[in-house]
Amino acid sequence: MKMLNKEFYYLNGQIMPSEDAKIHVSDLALLRGYGIFDFFRAIKGKPIFIEDHLDRFENSAKLMGLTIPESRKRLLEIIMELIRMNPYELLGIKMILTGGYSPDGYNPAEKSNLIMIARPFVFKDPARGIKLMSCEYQREIPEVKTLSYITPVRLLPKMRSIGADDYLYYYNGFISESSRSNIFIVKDQKVITPKTGFLPGVTRKHVMEACRGAFYLEERDVTLAETLAADEVFTTSSTQRVIAITQIDDHVFGDGQIGPVTKKLQELLLKEE
Amino acid sequence: MKMLNKEFYYLNGQIMPSEDAKIHVSDLALLRGYGIFDFFRAIKGKPIFIEDHLDRFENSAKLMGLTIPESRKRLLEIIMELIRMNPYELLGIKMILTGGYSPDGYNPAEKSNLIMIARPFVFKDPARGIKLMSCEYQREIPEVKTLSYITPVRLLPKMRSIGADDYLYYYNGFISESSRSNIFIVKDQKVITPKTGFLPGVTRKHVMEACRGAFYLEERDVTLAETLAADEVFTTSSTQRVIAITQIDDHVFGDGQIGPVTKKLQELLLKEE
Repeated sequence: MKMLNKEFYYLNGQIMPSEDAKIHVSDLALLRGYGIFDFFRAIKGKPIFIEDHLDRFENSAKLMGLTIPESRKRLLEIIMELIRMNPYELLGIKMILTGGYSPDGYNPAEKSNLIMIARPFVFKDPARGIKLMSCEYQREIPEVKTLSYITPVRLLPKMRSIGADDYLYYYNGFISESSRSNIFIVKDQKVITPKTGFLPGVTRKHVMEACRGAFYLEERDVTLAETLAADEVFTTSSTQRVIAITQIDDHVFGDGQIGPVTKKLQELLLKEE
Repeated sequence: MKMLNKEFYYLNGQIMPSEDAKIHVSDLALLRGYGIFDFFRAIKGKPIFIEDHLDRFENSAKLMGLTIPESRKRLLEIIMELIRMNPYELLGIKMILTGGYSPDGYNPAEKSNLIMIARPFVFKDPARGIKLMSCEYQREIPEVKTLSYITPVRLLPKMRSIGADDYLYYYNGFISESSRSNIFIVKDQKVITPKTGFLPGVTRKHVMEACRGAFYLEERDVTLAETLAADEVFTTSSTQRVIAITQIDDHVFGDGQIGPVTKKLQELLLKEE
């Protein structure tokens, strides 16, 4: 008899088969988009940069006035149990905290709903670059990993129609981030990344640390124009690590291949994990 | 034996006791705030301005690339059945359409989830005015009734701490709307309301029609400064009908009582229902 791997999720105190993870329609994330999340990978049973992700999860919750119903120690125990019950070599875990079962469909409940979704995933090929579509947009409360993605999800058909893989958000002439990753540019061997207006990524932080001793790093406002004039552009995220941006709209960078600085930072990041 | 009134909700083809209305955590409204809704009242079994609400629901769905899984005729049948099963004299019905059970937590599903929540409600006292807190904010895709309310929900504690009942959104010096209602100002017997940047309300539409023959009406951009200098300010919504704004931040209008134009429009709107 062949056994299919089942997935297990966590919901409000219990780990259960994924198909049983249901919430009542009075949840404030469903009704008002009110909630936060975080996402990290577990590789061969080890959650990567987990303390950074828990730090950010706690910070997002605080900035949204939500209380995480479990202690940090207990969160870690739940995560390790989820990893044990979902024995994939590469596992992605999404932790979601919502405004809870609202008494009136608008005010947060006293108790938040806590959900953890665990699913296998695959990395993008690090040797291949991707294409971005520029998009004039500024995320609401960008420093919080909120559930709000209506603009990028709505524009997916347009993005796909031009063969792009993700967005490059800019506003008032300055770039901020991609829909689910941070942006770096490389110019004359300098590595430059925006300083404000985006979600501070965990992979971004570790790539910046990896730059120390290897490259000159600048954290400052970056215009869309200088992004297009860069030698290399790359994104960083927990799902993709470091991926080269070889094209933005109609503009192809250099020979359209992954650049040497991006390649070096891919290698340096792997040593940090 | 005393029977408590039970509430019944609709979910994906079925009417069920409200406590059974649960959706799987892979729903895209929960994961990415991706969905729309509409809200209307039923008074003594009659849904008010229902064709306007269905028009707007259909338009919101279209602008978000979502497909309503039932015909308009069937939606009306479901609504009438919900009203029959929830025999409250005043009933509020919220229709929600989400991006469905996403295959990957980001892309909409082929089939949306359709939810209808029916709950009794009470009107605000039309003789009393309310206080607004001004808030620099522009809604994302304002012409669509999306589920995205993270800024107003997040600011609730601040709003309550100054004793305000709702927000007055302004951006670049111009007002747009309140968190869940439209705004009108009255100056020298003229009724003025913003023209762009907000959700076109059904009650707003009917109040504008009620103005015909009674008051001179202007639809144009309105500054925050002229709002504060107005003789009267009022909001319109399906939950509140017409309610006087007697205070914005520290500024009290006139004697802090409901003004004559607001009062007249309250009466005229009731005749339209």
